[in-house]
Amino acid sequence: MTELIAQPLTATAFSTFGEVIDLQGGLDYAQRMVINDGLTERFHDLFTIDISAQGAGGTARPIVSLFQTKPLPLPHRVRVMERHPLSSQAFLPLDDLPFLVLVATATDGVPMTATALSLFITNGRQGINFYRNTWHHFQIVLGKTRRFMVVDRAGSGENLQQTELQDEVWIPAAEY
Amino acid sequence: MTELIAQPLTATAFSTFGEVIDLQGGLDYAQRMVINDGLTERFHDLFTIDISAQGAGGTARPIVSLFQTKPLPLPHRVRVMERHPLSSQAFLPLDDLPFLVLVATATDGVPMTATALSLFITNGRQGINFYRNTWHHFQIVLGKTRRFMVVDRAGSGENLQQTELQDEVWIPAAEY
Repeated sequence: MTELIAQPLTATAFSTFGEVIDLQGGLDYAQRMVINDGLTERFHDLFTIDISAQGAGGTARPIVSLFQTKPLPLPHRVRVMERHPLSSQAFLPLDDLPFLVLVATATDGVPMTATALSLFITNGRQGINFYRNTWHHFQIVLGKTRRFMVVDRAGSGENLQQTELQDEVWIPAAEY
Repeated sequence: MTELIAQPLTATAFSTFGEVIDLQGGLDYAQRMVINDGLTERFHDLFTIDISAQGAGGTARPIVSLFQTKPLPLPHRVRVMERHPLSSQAFLPLDDLPFLVLVATATDGVPMTATALSLFITNGRQGINFYRNTWHHFQIVLGKTRRFMVVDRAGSGENLQQTELQDEVWIPAAEY
């Protein structure tokens, strides 16, 4: 039995899985523009919307949705991971509270085990953008119901795959 | 001299100018889905990202940026309005505070006057999506610096036009 411990989310640690979206504001952005008579800082083009893969019929467009998610009761046994073969998927919190991000590396055709998993916790001013085909757990929030803007895809084709974990893995009850 | 008074933002009142994006959650959505073992309500595809118009060279992609905007000092004289001929532009607040939205109707070639203007105030759980070519004032927030996710466009072509107002219009100092 494996218990997962969350590590702080950083762009480097997450680089295999997707992009960390900095919602802090400040000077450390690649494209920072001052507009609106000096009143607005625009931090431009924060992540990569990838809807390049086409499903059957070949229609695809990016969409923005609202997620309202209840806390995941802990301890939680991790049984199923999912991925989206046709699009990236970004999560942008509408508040400044941390959330958990569980991702996995995998080789097609090889059963997924505990060693494939990585658990991260955001600093409250971070969003994330899963790359297309990144294995991940469904959204995990703790403490209270949370709202997120989610950027992914609508269109033809099946954009959800799931796989079962082969061994016993838990997210323990902990104070995050 | 005209002083603008804000009216509550509703989808009906705003329908000429763009879409009102409901960030409240609840049951009143056209596409509401329950996912993630029942923990998440997905309010699907909230607004229309329009990058259908092409600039010179014809490259365009939707992007998401962070805006961090300081309060506009009031009273404020409205001198210039702007529009984006190549894309819609959505503003999604990262908090639950109201903001002002100043828009205008116009006929190309006819100077813009005070009667063209409409000022709205959001309820705190609303975002907005300006239609392509909707005349609007740059972002107006009051009270404290605010952060927004903005969905618009990157690509070839000039996506900003501006016009000067022909008469004297003010947003008065008021308690919103």
